[in-house]
Amino acid sequence: MSAPEGFKQVDEAVHSNETTKINPYGPNPADYLSNAANFQLIESTLREGEQFANAFFSTETKIEIAKALDDFGVDYIELTSPVASEQSRHDCEAICKLGLRAKILTHIRCHMDDARVAVETGVDGVDVVIGTSQFLRKFSHGKDMNYIAKSAVEVIEYVKSKGIEIRFSSEDSFRSDLVDLLNIYRTVDKIGVNRVGIADTVGCANPRQVYELVRTLKSVVNCEIECHFHNDTGCAIANAYTALEAGAKLVDVSVLGIGERNGITPLGGLMARMIAADRDYVTSKYKLHKLRDIENLVAEAVQVNIPFNNPITGFCAFTHKAGIHAKAILANPSTYEILNPSDFGLTRYIHFANRLTGWNAIKSRVDQLNLHLSDVQCKEVTEKIKSLGDVRPLTIDDVDSIIKEFHADLSIPVIRPASETDGDQRLDGPDPKRSKPE
Amino acid sequence: MSAPEGFKQVDEAVHSNETTKINPYGPNPADYLSNAANFQLIESTLREGEQFANAFFSTETKIEIAKALDDFGVDYIELTSPVASEQSRHDCEAICKLGLRAKILTHIRCHMDDARVAVETGVDGVDVVIGTSQFLRKFSHGKDMNYIAKSAVEVIEYVKSKGIEIRFSSEDSFRSDLVDLLNIYRTVDKIGVNRVGIADTVGCANPRQVYELVRTLKSVVNCEIECHFHNDTGCAIANAYTALEAGAKLVDVSVLGIGERNGITPLGGLMARMIAADRDYVTSKYKLHKLRDIENLVAEAVQVNIPFNNPITGFCAFTHKAGIHAKAILANPSTYEILNPSDFGLTRYIHFANRLTGWNAIKSRVDQLNLHLSDVQCKEVTEKIKSLGDVRPLTIDDVDSIIKEFHADLSIPVIRPASETDGDQRLDGPDPKRSKPE
Repeated sequence: MSAPEGFKQVDEAVHSNETTKINPYGPNPADYLSNAANFQLIESTLREGEQFANAFFSTETKIEIAKALDDFGVDYIELTSPVASEQSRHDCEAICKLGLRAKILTHIRCHMDDARVAVETGVDGVDVVIGTSQFLRKFSHGKDMNYIAKSAVEVIEYVKSKGIEIRFSSEDSFRSDLVDLLNIYRTVDKIGVNRVGIADTVGCANPRQVYELVRTLKSVVNCEIECHFHNDTGCAIANAYTALEAGAKLVDVSVLGIGERNGITPLGGLMARMIAADRDYVTSKYKLHKLRDIENLVAEAVQVNIPFNNPITGFCAFTHKAGIHAKAILANPSTYEILNPSDFGLTRYIHFANRLTGWNAIKSRVDQLNLHLSDVQCKEVTEKIKSLGDVRPLTIDDVDSIIKEFHADLSIPVIRPASETDGDQRLDGPDPKRSKPE
Repeated sequence: MSAPEGFKQVDEAVHSNETTKINPYGPNPADYLSNAANFQLIESTLREGEQFANAFFSTETKIEIAKALDDFGVDYIELTSPVASEQSRHDCEAICKLGLRAKILTHIRCHMDDARVAVETGVDGVDVVIGTSQFLRKFSHGKDMNYIAKSAVEVIEYVKSKGIEIRFSSEDSFRSDLVDLLNIYRTVDKIGVNRVGIADTVGCANPRQVYELVRTLKSVVNCEIECHFHNDTGCAIANAYTALEAGAKLVDVSVLGIGERNGITPLGGLMARMIAADRDYVTSKYKLHKLRDIENLVAEAVQVNIPFNNPITGFCAFTHKAGIHAKAILANPSTYEILNPSDFGLTRYIHFANRLTGWNAIKSRVDQLNLHLSDVQCKEVTEKIKSLGDVRPLTIDDVDSIIKEFHADLSIPVIRPASETDGDQRLDGPDPKRSKPE
């Protein structure tokens, strides 16, 4: 695969923080509760992700995904309930036997029937969930809070007696009565759950609500807090980050965010958010250069394309186009990038073959072609390029032809043929074709 | 197009708020500054969106997009600077002459050269921007804050003298010195700009930082506050919402979020967030049922697919799969939906042909087939369906065959042939093929 038309690779440059001593877009130092630099991932592609419309994972695919996630460095891998189907139980047992470093969880309803099956699969922990909102209490299980508390205590004590981890989560927490929630969380905390979970099951929560609820919950329980955010209103990454700021410790994610409806907090998007907050913690813990491969693996398994605008791995996430952007990026990438593509094994591009281009980007191309033009001459040839860019989309060849013709007219010999310099293009560049309609 | 395999349409049901009197996931009533129920849109597909790697808009395409956005109901349409290229100027003039209801803006650098051209195009207002961060001051324009203030005053007074709107924005506001920012905003507010803008140019900001900055700025200026958020770390929708809560009034958006790198706050995603906050305001102002057409128009123009997980219009945004979700959705859609698909001219689906299905979803299908099975019988046939779902992906036909075979074994005559009931499927259903790899 050759470098796509209209793009050129920029030499890797170190992101500079020289003008600032502290990271101003990192966690607020006043937030003593914040776990933004001390969070853990519960990876749920094989549970929430299996609820994605297109998902049908064979046993082999599940194992491949689990191994890839383990290698990436996720802390927990959550699997579909073993009571969902016979094969679900077999798959759960098979993944437990892989001997992965990540802890294996399974996710069940708050029923003893489910708990008895779950603890026999070999999992390291059980995630229990029950709907607590008025909607779910009325239209789903039909139980009141006393019944919920009673079931929870029974299931929790049973799972604990087996010596494995137990999490209790409400469902649709942001539409549940706050006092009901705090009551049941305090009850389960007292009997010793490892974690309590809050879940924005319908994707309605906004960041300030999340902060308030998590912070309040933090003052009521001693155990860790896990959070689960759906993305219906586009806030799943921001809500997860804000929950960590408020004192939550664990975030549920899935690869590309796949799950019910349009899904949950995506693994890659959360990595983008967290590396901006604490690069050292994130890079020490997770193999970020494996992210693209994992996303491709899952995308293929569920037959979707990587979204064109995906954080980090979208085909243009590190492509700069407007002239003033290109100029500054050439001087220092930190001017227009908060993420460093090399952290993810990716490359930065300047898109210079278009009518929004500027003379700094063209000058850089002139240098790459090993030609010599003054700044005034570069500005002149840039005007020619912008004129053609007004008429039709341009390719790199178009721009190079205009530059070379302009240069030849000045009667200065071309020092190196273009075919050699074309070899400087990286082969793993952004490929706009990936996102073209079929 | 027939209904896709494995899906079935659910009869439209009114979203119920019967168990709550106020909207608990709407704006916080304590936030007297909030404009969440009183915001405006500055639609920038034809400016920020033109900086998207794949964008090359012909004049005809620009006009088609501008008309569609105007019809949708956006308040402002922002265009590329007329000094970017000769054609950019012609296009700007042509769109100004369309006589749209939306006000037309163009976006320029803080230079008198640009301002003189801009005011002659016929625009209703000019958006001026200059980099104020230490990064941009050092590596982009190289000017100090005194120079910036002096240029700003000159440009603003000139544009005002022409009787059109003027906005002054800093660039990279979240990495700029707070005192510098407040100083320049107060200066331009005093000379009478219509709006000041804050811009998260690199996508580094998080919601609580946004809230703090906007709230502080609100106490310094009297004019309206506009905000512009890039999506590099996945927070562009949440940041925009939080800015409105803090008192900002205008949000920059583009269709599908297209822009530099992976773009900005998307129009559709923000509509999802805002309709959850104030349905009456949003539905009274914007033609939401046109959203899908506008997204398709722009996606085709820039040669990308609609992301599979796009808010609202992603192919599975209203598809429910897990058994417990399906059961509750059948009883009341509000249990697992914060958005009502009919608000967007879309349809809800229950994905029942898979191993995670539950007997309530199957019972509903049995009813739709006009067969009669008891609950016990439905549970029995559901187990058969789940067993086959363990072996391979299922289609609706698979499920129907199992149900009919089971029913026939009970020796009860089939009342209506399946071919008739198949006609009940809606034609505009989700199409998983749209997101399949090429």
